Amino acid sequence: MAPDTTIRVGVRTRSLAEPRLQYIRQLGATDIFVDHADVDEEPDEFNDRDARATLAVGRDAIPTVADLEAAKERVEAAGLTLTGIQSLPYSLYGDIMFDREGKEAALEQITTLVRNLGEADIPILGYQWNPRGVVPMRTGSAELRGRAQGTAFDYDEIDDPDALAPGLDREYTEAEFWDNYETFLETVLPVAEEAGVEMALHPVDPPVIESMCGVPRLCRSVENFEKAMDLVPSDNHGLKLCLGCFSQMGEDVTDVLRTFGERDQIGFIHFRDVVGTVPEFHETFVDQGNFDTTEVVETLDEIGYDGVVIPDHVPAMTDDTDWRHRARGYTVGYLRGVIDTVQST
Amino acid sequence: MAPDTTIRVGVRTRSLAEPRLQYIRQLGATDIFVDHADVDEEPDEFNDRDARATLAVGRDAIPTVADLEAAKERVEAAGLTLTGIQSLPYSLYGDIMFDREGKEAALEQITTLVRNLGEADIPILGYQWNPRGVVPMRTGSAELRGRAQGTAFDYDEIDDPDALAPGLDREYTEAEFWDNYETFLETVLPVAEEAGVEMALHPVDPPVIESMCGVPRLCRSVENFEKAMDLVPSDNHGLKLCLGCFSQMGEDVTDVLRTFGERDQIGFIHFRDVVGTVPEFHETFVDQGNFDTTEVVETLDEIGYDGVVIPDHVPAMTDDTDWRHRARGYTVGYLRGVIDTVQST
Repeated sequence: MAPDTTIRVGVRTRSLAEPRLQYIRQLGATDIFVDHADVDEEPDEFNDRDARATLAVGRDAIPTVADLEAAKERVEAAGLTLTGIQSLPYSLYGDIMFDREGKEAALEQITTLVRNLGEADIPILGYQWNPRGVVPMRTGSAELRGRAQGTAFDYDEIDDPDALAPGLDREYTEAEFWDNYETFLETVLPVAEEAGVEMALHPVDPPVIESMCGVPRLCRSVENFEKAMDLVPSDNHGLKLCLGCFSQMGEDVTDVLRTFGERDQIGFIHFRDVVGTVPEFHETFVDQGNFDTTEVVETLDEIGYDGVVIPDHVPAMTDDTDWRHRARGYTVGYLRGVIDTVQST
Repeated sequence: MAPDTTIRVGVRTRSLAEPRLQYIRQLGATDIFVDHADVDEEPDEFNDRDARATLAVGRDAIPTVADLEAAKERVEAAGLTLTGIQSLPYSLYGDIMFDREGKEAALEQITTLVRNLGEADIPILGYQWNPRGVVPMRTGSAELRGRAQGTAFDYDEIDDPDALAPGLDREYTEAEFWDNYETFLETVLPVAEEAGVEMALHPVDPPVIESMCGVPRLCRSVENFEKAMDLVPSDNHGLKLCLGCFSQMGEDVTDVLRTFGERDQIGFIHFRDVVGTVPEFHETFVDQGNFDTTEVVETLDEIGYDGVVIPDHVPAMTDDTDWRHRARGYTVGYLRGVIDTVQST
C-alpha cells in the first residue's frame, strides 16, 4: 500500500471524455487541470487535439458557472477533482499585453472567468504572459533514449531574432510591458481575491532572453518573478512553477522552490526537465534532465508543499497517441513512485 | 539526473520487434526476458500475442546458439540486454512432472536449451513447476481504480476442485511429484552449472493449496521452496521470486526476500501485487496491493540485490493494447521512481 500523499499528482487534459478521465484515474492521479487549447489559434505539439467533451476557453468563449459545474461533475464522476484551468490562450491576454484595442473586452472576459470559477469552486486559474504563437518557442527536436523525441531550442538557429514578429510595427520596451502587465494585475487580482481564485503565472519559454522579435519577455528570471509578485501584492497570486523553464534558466530548482514556497506563492507545479540551458537545450524524460527528481520531491516535502504537480510536455514515444498516453502514463508513474517513497520515509 | 541503479528494471516480452524494444528502452528499462509464449498451447491474458520477430521456445522448438545470438544482437542493438528466457512452457516440463512417456525427450530438449543459453552467454532460464493449462489459475476479474480490470481468484468459485484434470486417470501424490521433480533437477542442474546458467523457479499460482484436480502443487510455500533448493544443492538454482505469489500466500514478502537473498538464491523478481490472500484475492496496480512497494525496494537495497525486477501481470487499462503498453509503461515508471529514490538516499 502506498502512503497517503500530500503532494498530489495531476494531469492536464483538454478532453473530459470518460475514457480519458478513466485512464488518468487508473494512473493514480487525483487532479485535473483542463486545457483551454484553442487549437485553431495555437496549434503546437503540446496541444490536445481531442476536442470532444471539453470546456472551451478562449476569446468570446468564457464558460458560464453552469458550464464549469457540469465539467466539475464530469470530472468528479470519474473519481477526480477539477482543480483548475491550466492556462489562458494568447487570444485572451495578447491585447492587454500590447495595450491594444480589445484590451477592455479581454479584461472583462478574464474577470468574468475568474468570477465564474469562484462560484463553481474551482480554485486555480493558470496563465502566462508569454507571446505564444507570436515568437518561436522551439527550433527543432532531439533524439532521446530508445529514439524517443524531445523538443529542442537553439538560439543560433533563429534566422533573425530581432526581426519584428508578424503584426508588429515597432519594438516594445520592457517598461511599457511592465505597465501593461500591471494594468492586468490591478484589474484581475482584486476580482480573484473576492472570488477565492488563485492566479498562477507561468514563465516565458524559453526564458532568460530579454526580448525576441520586438517583444519583451518579462517572466524570464527569478528576479522578474519576484517583481511580478510584488507589483500588485496579493495572496491570490502565485506561480505556475514550471520546473522545466527554471531548469532552462540554469537555476537550482530546489532553491527556486524554497524561495517561492516560503512565501506561499506556488500555485501548482509543471514537472518536466531539460538537458542544457538557454541558449541551447532540449526536453527529455523526467528522470534524465538537469535536476535530480528525487531531490526536488524531497524539497517539496521539506517545504510542506501540499499542492499538485503535473507532467507538462512529455517526450514523443513509439506508437503513442496524439495526447501521448504512454509518455504521460510513464511520467505519472515515475513521479508517483518518487513521491510515495519520499513521503513514506 | 537519476542515480546509477544497481537494482535494474526489466521487461518480459515475446516480441523482439524494433518498436517493442524501442518502447521498452524509452521507459528506462535495461533488461529483456523473452517470453516463450506458445500461444496455441497456453493462451491466457498474460501472453503476448505479437509473434513477429520473436524467439520461439517450446516442445520441438529449441533455439540454436545462432538463434539465441541473433536475438541477443537484436536486443543489444536497441540498447538493452537479453538477460534470460522468462519461462519454459508446460509442453516442455509436463511429461517430466507426471513421469510420462516423452520425459526423456523433454529432458534432452531442456538440457540442450541450457547449453545453448550458456554458449550464447544468456545467464538466466526461468521455469516453473506449475500445471498451467491443466489446472485453473484464475476464476474471474475485479474492478480496480478508474474501472481498470485485474484478474481474481476465489477458490469457492471452482465447481469441483477435486475433479481430475482433463487427461488424468488418477490423482498423483506429493511424494511421487517430488521424486519426478528431483529427476528433473538431477538432470538439468549439473548442465546448468557447466553452462554457467542459473535456473530460476517460479511459484505455483495460486499457491498455498496442496493439490488441485489431482495434481500436487509443490512450489506453494516458503518451506517448499527451501526444500526445492535443498533437493539437489546447486549454486545455479534460485527463485524467480514472484512477489505477487508470495503476497497471495500471506507472507511478509520482505522476510521472503531476506531469506532467499541471504542464500543468494534470487534469480530475478516478478514485481506485482494482489489484494487478499488464497483462497480469495485479486491482482491490482503495483502501488495498491498487500505490500508496501517502497519497503520492498528498501529491503532489496539493504540485502544488496543487484539483479532485475520485472513487472509481471499488469492490470487491463482503458484502450490499452494486447500487450498492455500503457499499464506496463506505468508500472515500469512507478518502479523506477521508487528504485531511483531508495537508491539515492
